Amino acid sequence: MECSTDTLAAMLGPNITNADGAAALICNNFNTVSDKFTDTAYAVDSTYLLFSAYLVFSMQLGFAMLCAGSVRAKNTMNIMLTNVLDAAAGGLFYYLFGFAFAFGTPSNGFIGKHNFALKSIPSSDFDYSYFLYQWAFAIAAAGITSGSIAERTQFVAYLIYSAFLTGFVYPVVSHWFWSADGWASAFNSDNLLFGSGVIDFAGSGVVHMVGGIAGLYGALIEGPRIGRFDHSGRSVALRGHSASLVVLGTFLLWFGWYGFNPGSFNKILVAYEPGQYYGQWSAVGRTAVTTTLAGCTAALTTLFGKRILLGHWNVVDVCNGLLGGFAAITAGCSVVDPWAAVICGFVAACVLTGCNKLAEKFKYDDPLEAAQLHGGCGAWGIIFTALFAKEKYVNEVYPGKPGRPYGLFMGGGGKLLGAHVIQILVIFGFVSATMGPLFLILHKLKLLRISPEDETAGMDMTRHGGFAYVYHDESDDPKGLPMRKIEPASST
Amino acid sequence: MECSTDTLAAMLGPNITNADGAAALICNNFNTVSDKFTDTAYAVDSTYLLFSAYLVFSMQLGFAMLCAGSVRAKNTMNIMLTNVLDAAAGGLFYYLFGFAFAFGTPSNGFIGKHNFALKSIPSSDFDYSYFLYQWAFAIAAAGITSGSIAERTQFVAYLIYSAFLTGFVYPVVSHWFWSADGWASAFNSDNLLFGSGVIDFAGSGVVHMVGGIAGLYGALIEGPRIGRFDHSGRSVALRGHSASLVVLGTFLLWFGWYGFNPGSFNKILVAYEPGQYYGQWSAVGRTAVTTTLAGCTAALTTLFGKRILLGHWNVVDVCNGLLGGFAAITAGCSVVDPWAAVICGFVAACVLTGCNKLAEKFKYDDPLEAAQLHGGCGAWGIIFTALFAKEKYVNEVYPGKPGRPYGLFMGGGGKLLGAHVIQILVIFGFVSATMGPLFLILHKLKLLRISPEDETAGMDMTRHGGFAYVYHDESDDPKGLPMRKIEPASST
Amino acid sequence: MECSTDTLAAMLGPNITNADGAAALICNNFNTVSDKFTDTAYAVDSTYLLFSAYLVFSMQLGFAMLCAGSVRAKNTMNIMLTNVLDAAAGGLFYYLFGFAFAFGTPSNGFIGKHNFALKSIPSSDFDYSYFLYQWAFAIAAAGITSGSIAERTQFVAYLIYSAFLTGFVYPVVSHWFWSADGWASAFNSDNLLFGSGVIDFAGSGVVHMVGGIAGLYGALIEGPRIGRFDHSGRSVALRGHSASLVVLGTFLLWFGWYGFNPGSFNKILVAYEPGQYYGQWSAVGRTAVTTTLAGCTAALTTLFGKRILLGHWNVVDVCNGLLGGFAAITAGCSVVDPWAAVICGFVAACVLTGCNKLAEKFKYDDPLEAAQLHGGCGAWGIIFTALFAKEKYVNEVYPGKPGRPYGLFMGGGGKLLGAHVIQILVIFGFVSATMGPLFLILHKLKLLRISPEDETAGMDMTRHGGFAYVYHDESDDPKGLPMRKIEPASST
Repeated sequence: MECSTDTLAAMLGPNITNADGAAALICNNFNTVSDKFTDTAYAVDSTYLLFSAYLVFSMQLGFAMLCAGSVRAKNTMNIMLTNVLDAAAGGLFYYLFGFAFAFGTPSNGFIGKHNFALKSIPSSDFDYSYFLYQWAFAIAAAGITSGSIAERTQFVAYLIYSAFLTGFVYPVVSHWFWSADGWASAFNSDNLLFGSGVIDFAGSGVVHMVGGIAGLYGALIEGPRIGRFDHSGRSVALRGHSASLVVLGTFLLWFGWYGFNPGSFNKILVAYEPGQYYGQWSAVGRTAVTTTLAGCTAALTTLFGKRILLGHWNVVDVCNGLLGGFAAITAGCSVVDPWAAVICGFVAACVLTGCNKLAEKFKYDDPLEAAQLHGGCGAWGIIFTALFAKEKYVNEVYPGKPGRPYGLFMGGGGKLLGAHVIQILVIFGFVSATMGPLFLILHKLKLLRISPEDETAGMDMTRHGGFAYVYHDESDDPKGLPMRKIEPASST
Repeated sequence: MECSTDTLAAMLGPNITNADGAAALICNNFNTVSDKFTDTAYAVDSTYLLFSAYLVFSMQLGFAMLCAGSVRAKNTMNIMLTNVLDAAAGGLFYYLFGFAFAFGTPSNGFIGKHNFALKSIPSSDFDYSYFLYQWAFAIAAAGITSGSIAERTQFVAYLIYSAFLTGFVYPVVSHWFWSADGWASAFNSDNLLFGSGVIDFAGSGVVHMVGGIAGLYGALIEGPRIGRFDHSGRSVALRGHSASLVVLGTFLLWFGWYGFNPGSFNKILVAYEPGQYYGQWSAVGRTAVTTTLAGCTAALTTLFGKRILLGHWNVVDVCNGLLGGFAAITAGCSVVDPWAAVICGFVAACVLTGCNKLAEKFKYDDPLEAAQLHGGCGAWGIIFTALFAKEKYVNEVYPGKPGRPYGLFMGGGGKLLGAHVIQILVIFGFVSATMGPLFLILHKLKLLRISPEDETAGMDMTRHGGFAYVYHDESDDPKGLPMRKIEPASST
Repeated sequence: MECSTDTLAAMLGPNITNADGAAALICNNFNTVSDKFTDTAYAVDSTYLLFSAYLVFSMQLGFAMLCAGSVRAKNTMNIMLTNVLDAAAGGLFYYLFGFAFAFGTPSNGFIGKHNFALKSIPSSDFDYSYFLYQWAFAIAAAGITSGSIAERTQFVAYLIYSAFLTGFVYPVVSHWFWSADGWASAFNSDNLLFGSGVIDFAGSGVVHMVGGIAGLYGALIEGPRIGRFDHSGRSVALRGHSASLVVLGTFLLWFGWYGFNPGSFNKILVAYEPGQYYGQWSAVGRTAVTTTLAGCTAALTTLFGKRILLGHWNVVDVCNGLLGGFAAITAGCSVVDPWAAVICGFVAACVLTGCNKLAEKFKYDDPLEAAQLHGGCGAWGIIFTALFAKEKYVNEVYPGKPGRPYGLFMGGGGKLLGAHVIQILVIFGFVSATMGPLFLILHKLKLLRISPEDETAGMDMTRHGGFAYVYHDESDDPKGLPMRKIEPASST
């Protein structure tokens, strides 16, 4: 929309009574209209981003319930406390420096260095809603890791690695792949890696692989829980204490993923073809659909796969399969067609099953299958994107650089695949180089694993003030239910 | 908004310096403005529809928790698996053909036949968000049915009827009443049934009656659970294992119903009186209010009714009453006044109580009261709409056909009631003719009901890999809690 | 945007062919544009407000789960029923008269007196969405109170006080502080209290203090639960039966608080600097951030504080600390900087710990710590706002009265603090004068507290049809789990 008062006045010419006045009246109105569209777009996009952030936040509740249900009852308070703290400590750390490390542009290429404690925000670059959205992502990474090392980790160790992961490791990785300054970011305007940059739209690599690989190191260094493998080395399932909580958590994660993936557009009021029905709102919807289909296909694949392998229909396994499909589609959700998402989900289920077989073989114990699910399926998702990203969608979602590479199987050449292999290697390397030593040092300092006595008794009794559940109270019951006198938990 | 460059240039006339240029400048700007409004409306409406879809999806979690809490602990894994699969299998089927059957216009009147696997979507008719919203509805119908036949149905039978219901029966019914091609749709532009069409705004009939009647046939053919009626024929309540899960599920369904009913407008940026405060946003808000009031009234009616009938205040019954109120208001939520919603809820609670009495009398066993609640209250909601629909609202919500019939008690004549009686009969007939035979065939093939031994033991132990809960572990506890050694559930 | 056809026609003048026609064409288009912006703003703001209302509603589920988890298993059905009824009865009462008392303008200064049963709504003042939003607030207040008097209150007493609180006490207080007619409202255009009015943006006072002080009187008059203090007067923790439900409820409240605080703007499409990035959308985002940071800081403070005081890391205490931070920031969330929110949260955690110490000292028993948390932290939040409210934000959020007072520590003088001290005193006084006598009368009439026998047995068994949980069923189990025959709960 353009209206120059001078131009219009000249066109109206000297013969009319007040050309300048008429032109000014008209152009001022158009300028007001233009301003109002700007305001409207800010309001619409902010509404979209804020509610997406709230959905992503609800995933933290999903994690808490999934984790709680997947551990034994005696460690429920412990794992839920870590989930609450991921959000709470994450909030403070990400406010103070995490966001600055990740997005404080201009950066030195490795790490951002502005916007500490939200300084200079809001600006034309970032509003508070963007910070909130990114915070909700940051706390998800730490949540993944806490699943891998559940039921045997000292609480102090958790506080240390969680702060380090949320405050440094994750922000640095997200800077590389998501910031406009990131050396491998698909938004980098100067110099795209392989002319392409990495298309990790919502973070199969940045969030899921980071959390999963951190968990891998933690669980490897700690070793399996007592009783997880018997004397002859056979795997013994230490079942979680509540399938209801597992299903509750899984559905909440599904619900929240609609903020995680479609929300990663940040804006919805972007026209691809002005005045037509097709625009970023369609791409957002398509992203919700690809996310849904990948999860659904992975769930069904797991259902029938496990039926064949184990002989029963297992809801907990189906839930994990579903989540594996989501973790995989997260990288490419915005740039692939729905049919490709079905393929993504199918393979994700196979990858998860394969990783779990490997884990058993190597006596790797991960109570939430977090390294397998977020690490394994996340890595598959990165490869998948490099194979199936569609030219049209890539150019719409990452505009302004026509001719950029897209999926290998879609005719877009191998450059995107090259960039994505680099991403996998770099994330694996960087997380190994940071979280590996951290867990090793904690291990050497005897700060990592709890004592065998505490592990057998359960951390809730020994560290967290008592058992999570009290269903029965023997002295009070008139109908003969078995109950137990409650001990004073705190007294003055 | 209209601006013809030629017309404006002619008005400015030959005396001004550059009439064509001035007119083009002005009109081009107005055309840009017009395009931007179009884009804005797409973005706003898509945001509205997508978040509504997410809310409707959260109802699936609500169903899962409600169902889990309403069955005995020994069948928890089974029922939750069916809920997860309703969503997952429903996603794939509805993508492949369900949506095409329901909305693939132009149709042959009976069933849609385009848009398989989202072909030709997005278009000016349908965007991805619309598909996602309709998918979330489709899986709700199957969820209703699984409640009726809980605790005694073979898992294979579930897989078969669920696919048939979500993939064929529900799409066909929704085509008839909701598609622009549907023979009884209030949107049909050629030929409205009785000059009216059926006003089943969010699906008291299309979703709730369909799911409820399918459940009725399943539960009738299977017969009651072992122990549900004692030797003398007295009804014995087989209480669900967790009232907390029932309340959790009920509140989640309430939450999700705000996507189900107000969301069914699909668009919110529609002015009824341009430039004024009153528009579709008000109608959306009114729909949220009528929904709320119907549920609230039904809950209170049930509370006091049950207190009188049974002598105690029962939260599970209140939850069911609440949901009955919601199922009833779903058809007319957008076209009635708030005071009418109060009547709707009051009667819905009575209908539910009456249906439950009938069910006991005929020894019909429905663990979730699903046929009574969704079938009975759904049918009442269809009648209610035909009695209380308000002229003004009907014309705003279903525009473009002035003079169309409305509620009988509001002076709108009996034509709407006629159409709605037809709807009830047709839904009853079609579901009977499809789901009835299906359940009968499964029964004859001995694929429907589990063995008495499995039913007594519980399906979780015999089919799903173990009990849903493990609260205690005897060898590990230092404080004398009664606990149990966990068995290997899977081993290599 | 202004376009007068006459003015423009005069400017174009007599020399052009059809000055009136051209001016009319142009101005009519601008008027249409203006109308469309009005419509767009209504749609965007309504979407924002409605989804915020849904989030606030989800807090009712959060309360239900938090309360359920915090009481003993034997009273679970009772407390959940009160939570369902807060919403249901609240819906009907707030529709019939609560909203009219609160916002039925013009009022007599004490209480509103229009809009009973939504009469004359929608109007240019209020749409249905506003009613829904306010209803969701009203039911929160009653939910707070039910926590204080849990596990020992007759159900009939609950019905009476809940109706009185939701239907009268809360609406009157909200009228004073939030209605444009309220004598202490910051929106009052005639006569601001101390030239300032009370800035209780989302209700630390109006909602939290009201609910908390009502609970205080109830719990004081009823006295502590049996066994809460032993024979020597030592405090004995009567632990809630499920930490999982406590965490679930806390996270849901956190989720819902994003509707409660940022949603209290009601509108998001308001430009502070037209055409720039900064507007009410930024203020909304900032409010979400301050809310988050206050809660996070309070949670961390509580974690380390309790570790020092009690020697263990307690998730339930951390949850309460978190909620205390939220209750405190609720008053000032929109007018303070993020760094101030950190201070708010830190002090809130200390206030809560202090109030809990006091409560133990005075043998005050509040199963949910509701009076301490909502009353104590709510009062701190009111003071906090008067100290830290920032001039710029106050003028943006409460526009049209330049030069109004702001936070004492920010250089804004003591007038706001004066108004806020008045608020605390007035709320304390009014709730004392209404709820105090009500609870006393119920006490005198022996309608308040249940019998010691019922209290020992648990209300679920004696009043609500049975125990909330049935995990085991002895006769059915083939693997030797301890189980119990289920009794008929209702029979015909």
